[in-house]
Amino acid sequence: MRLLSPTKVRLLSFGRGDVLAGSGGPTVRSLTSPPLLTRRGLPKEKMSENGLMSRAKVLTIDTMNPTVKKVEYAVRGPIVQRAVELERELSEGMKKPFVEVIRANIGDAHAMGQQPITFFRQVLALCSYPELLNDSTFPEDAKSRAHRILQSCGGNSMGSYSASQGIDSVRQDVARYIERRDGGVSCDPDDIYLTTGASDGIVTMLKLLMCGEGAARTGVMISIPQYPLYSAALAELGAVQINYYLNEENCWSLDITELQRALDEARLHCNPRALCIINPGNPTGQVQSRECIEDVIRFAAKERLFLMADEVYQDNVYADGCQFHSFKKVLFEMGPEYSNTVELASFHSTSKCYMGECGFRGGYMEIINMDDDVKAQLTKLVSVRLCPPVPGQALMDLVVNPPQPGEPSYDNFIKERTATLSVLAEKAKLTEQVLNTVQGISCNPVQGAMYSFPRITIPKKAIEEALDKGQQPDMFYCMKMLEETGICLVPGSGFGQKEGTYHFRMTILPPTDKLQILLNKVKEFHQKFTQQYS
Amino acid sequence: MRLLSPTKVRLLSFGRGDVLAGSGGPTVRSLTSPPLLTRRGLPKEKMSENGLMSRAKVLTIDTMNPTVKKVEYAVRGPIVQRAVELERELSEGMKKPFVEVIRANIGDAHAMGQQPITFFRQVLALCSYPELLNDSTFPEDAKSRAHRILQSCGGNSMGSYSASQGIDSVRQDVARYIERRDGGVSCDPDDIYLTTGASDGIVTMLKLLMCGEGAARTGVMISIPQYPLYSAALAELGAVQINYYLNEENCWSLDITELQRALDEARLHCNPRALCIINPGNPTGQVQSRECIEDVIRFAAKERLFLMADEVYQDNVYADGCQFHSFKKVLFEMGPEYSNTVELASFHSTSKCYMGECGFRGGYMEIINMDDDVKAQLTKLVSVRLCPPVPGQALMDLVVNPPQPGEPSYDNFIKERTATLSVLAEKAKLTEQVLNTVQGISCNPVQGAMYSFPRITIPKKAIEEALDKGQQPDMFYCMKMLEETGICLVPGSGFGQKEGTYHFRMTILPPTDKLQILLNKVKEFHQKFTQQYS
Repeated sequence: MRLLSPTKVRLLSFGRGDVLAGSGGPTVRSLTSPPLLTRRGLPKEKMSENGLMSRAKVLTIDTMNPTVKKVEYAVRGPIVQRAVELERELSEGMKKPFVEVIRANIGDAHAMGQQPITFFRQVLALCSYPELLNDSTFPEDAKSRAHRILQSCGGNSMGSYSASQGIDSVRQDVARYIERRDGGVSCDPDDIYLTTGASDGIVTMLKLLMCGEGAARTGVMISIPQYPLYSAALAELGAVQINYYLNEENCWSLDITELQRALDEARLHCNPRALCIINPGNPTGQVQSRECIEDVIRFAAKERLFLMADEVYQDNVYADGCQFHSFKKVLFEMGPEYSNTVELASFHSTSKCYMGECGFRGGYMEIINMDDDVKAQLTKLVSVRLCPPVPGQALMDLVVNPPQPGEPSYDNFIKERTATLSVLAEKAKLTEQVLNTVQGISCNPVQGAMYSFPRITIPKKAIEEALDKGQQPDMFYCMKMLEETGICLVPGSGFGQKEGTYHFRMTILPPTDKLQILLNKVKEFHQKFTQQYS
Repeated sequence: MRLLSPTKVRLLSFGRGDVLAGSGGPTVRSLTSPPLLTRRGLPKEKMSENGLMSRAKVLTIDTMNPTVKKVEYAVRGPIVQRAVELERELSEGMKKPFVEVIRANIGDAHAMGQQPITFFRQVLALCSYPELLNDSTFPEDAKSRAHRILQSCGGNSMGSYSASQGIDSVRQDVARYIERRDGGVSCDPDDIYLTTGASDGIVTMLKLLMCGEGAARTGVMISIPQYPLYSAALAELGAVQINYYLNEENCWSLDITELQRALDEARLHCNPRALCIINPGNPTGQVQSRECIEDVIRFAAKERLFLMADEVYQDNVYADGCQFHSFKKVLFEMGPEYSNTVELASFHSTSKCYMGECGFRGGYMEIINMDDDVKAQLTKLVSVRLCPPVPGQALMDLVVNPPQPGEPSYDNFIKERTATLSVLAEKAKLTEQVLNTVQGISCNPVQGAMYSFPRITIPKKAIEEALDKGQQPDMFYCMKMLEETGICLVPGSGFGQKEGTYHFRMTILPPTDKLQILLNKVKEFHQKFTQQYS
């Protein structure tokens, strides 16, 4: 190891928080400056065992991308890291007040025991290993779907790159699906981009919208509570996050007056350019009415906002009287004044609904009224990443082109889909009902999606103890629940909430019997916690 | 459609190049400004059929993300778009001087007829549709691999999200693979991040390194010629691209004096922080010697540069006397002065080597000597996108943990792998030989990877005609070749080259008989072209 001279050390300092030691390898005393502190307030440098000097790290917390540091993603944040630790501790035989960790933090249906749709997996197996096309145990419709997908792949292999926008035949099937879903409103396959899950599409669209500095910086309106992909992407892109609050008192409805308030305030310090809507809502579970969607479209038109409709839960509608209306359909039914002008991107995914195929990272976006030159830029941009994963594209194809009446797999497909969706509806109701029996918890109806987002009353003493620890009170609450019950939830602060209110997000995905136990444990925990801190 | 008043129009203008018309839907005359021109010099606006006014688009070429506009990606650029058009024209029965388009523009092995490894696809089929675990026609080792992968998935399903860093057991297998590859140098699974292809890992690492403005802006050293993912990512991230030139006269070797020249010049206007190396080279096909790698590591240590080693072609080494040396191995063999300090990220993928499974988007990166706090930020950052595609992770697992001697699939696996690699070696040699018979084409040996990057002499008259058309001379050349022969190559200008030199990149992937025909066609075309313009 070389000993650097003080002169050299100065030369190596770029004057931007560069420190003379790293964690990991051997470290050194600084020759030129007092000890620097890390974020955690610990001295960052120390003499290495042999007293020799090491090179300072190129990449440190102080010299890394500052926008990345601002990113937060609660759904996989500290509470999940602790859950992973607890699982390891349990597996090592450590004693806990619970026998297993229940991950109700993330909408991961298969991990909670939901079974894949047989037909989908048969086709994927056939596409993966086409020798199976000779296997008589596979149904003919699965074989013909696999054959069609493979024919659209270079060299008839899922191992080929596809077109960057996605396989042509899959985009055609998506367009036909959208036309059926939207009662015949036409859809052009050229407006479809297949994506690596919906997240990929959302981030790509947000990226296109970034422009300007200072008071002209792009602002993007997102609901509060929101799904934290949005806040994370906006932080990383350096955009201004414009919060509009959903009305918890009215079943998490979206009020236009609140949109207007948020927009007017934002116009003073940024350039609001886009409005993001999640319908059915994540984490809030509301399903928007047709009128509300019309109002939002009128608002976007009047205020010149690019609309982004996150519609990944489009099949997850449970409540009586609720129905999914796509932004596209409503837009086109509002006539050419809107349908010819309002710019809209709508996102869908293989990860939610009845299929829950998160791991395949399949998805699409439909782009309406996008400027042709911008669209060319979008196509160029997605080409840099070559293509979305082809198995995910194949799966997306099956979602939009499932077995049809008369085909051999039709009955079983319908049976499986119906069973999954009706169990979800049952669990949505159960969750709302049980949580509302607890004093200090109040839960809006879970009209759709996969989550409840109940409001919780946290005693003043608990709030104080949390703040003393530098924790959000609902993080304190959820951490305590995790340590005592093994239930992993996400605190409301990770999604955003009105100041002074506290919530958690809990998926409705565990199997019904387990969900029942889980809800009872939440109930007990809340009662104990309230007692302890009152 | 509403008629906006001139006042309203002004209010809607944000003064940042906002235009009053879009392409696509009905458009209008501007009420306040003279007609604006698009990039192509065409008037952008026109009266709509009914003479009414439409809303201006929110997102136009003038108001979109300026860094995205700077992105270029030649491998899927205009020449490929034209190839797609030609394919359509052919399929519509249009007459052309060729019967098919041959895509030699992209390293897409399966699209060129390379067959997948049977074992890999059997395991993927088993993982996709676990019912097949009961099928006696599948070999036991495929079943046991599938079983192990499924056991590591939530709910035993590839449809579950994995940990954001990748499935634990896969990362363990990757670590053991690296240890075997590097003669026992230890590897910690915690240093492995599974990725969505290598591109994803490279962009993520570059993102972490971005910091500073103006003269303190992050600079990243890349080879010229380069794989254009690098230039595209740097443009999008707003980093400074620092070009170092490979020495074409010496078989595209990397000279430290050239690295030093490039770095010293760059230091005057940016903060160089990283050095990217592609070995084996893309598009240049060279394989670096052990000494060269040592020199690069010493250089990176001395100059405090974060090393990024793109090693996706690690199995693609063909030339006698050439051998793949991983940066990791060389680094550790240089002793603790280097192995404890030099920060290195190495990238691998399922897309190249003998497997060529591009469509699955599998990959990993190994991170050496990264600051712990930065690593925590990296883990957080990747968690926002939830996880890499699980089928790609499964495939990566099979690549690093293939059938072992004594297992039922071993012999066939070795047979298939050897066949593919030896055919590639044959085609590498054939390409070099044939191209070097052409006067005006000179081609370095294709020591490794999947491409030749020959230098071509373009007659002065052709250069002038190209520049008159606003085209790079080698783009002009490649476009002409495409139109006349159906062969799709990528011009050297898309990868970067010394001023005044011209090249193209051609994959060596077409089947040998087709490659032979293709090379002869290239020869004929070049001769004709040279004659025509001299």
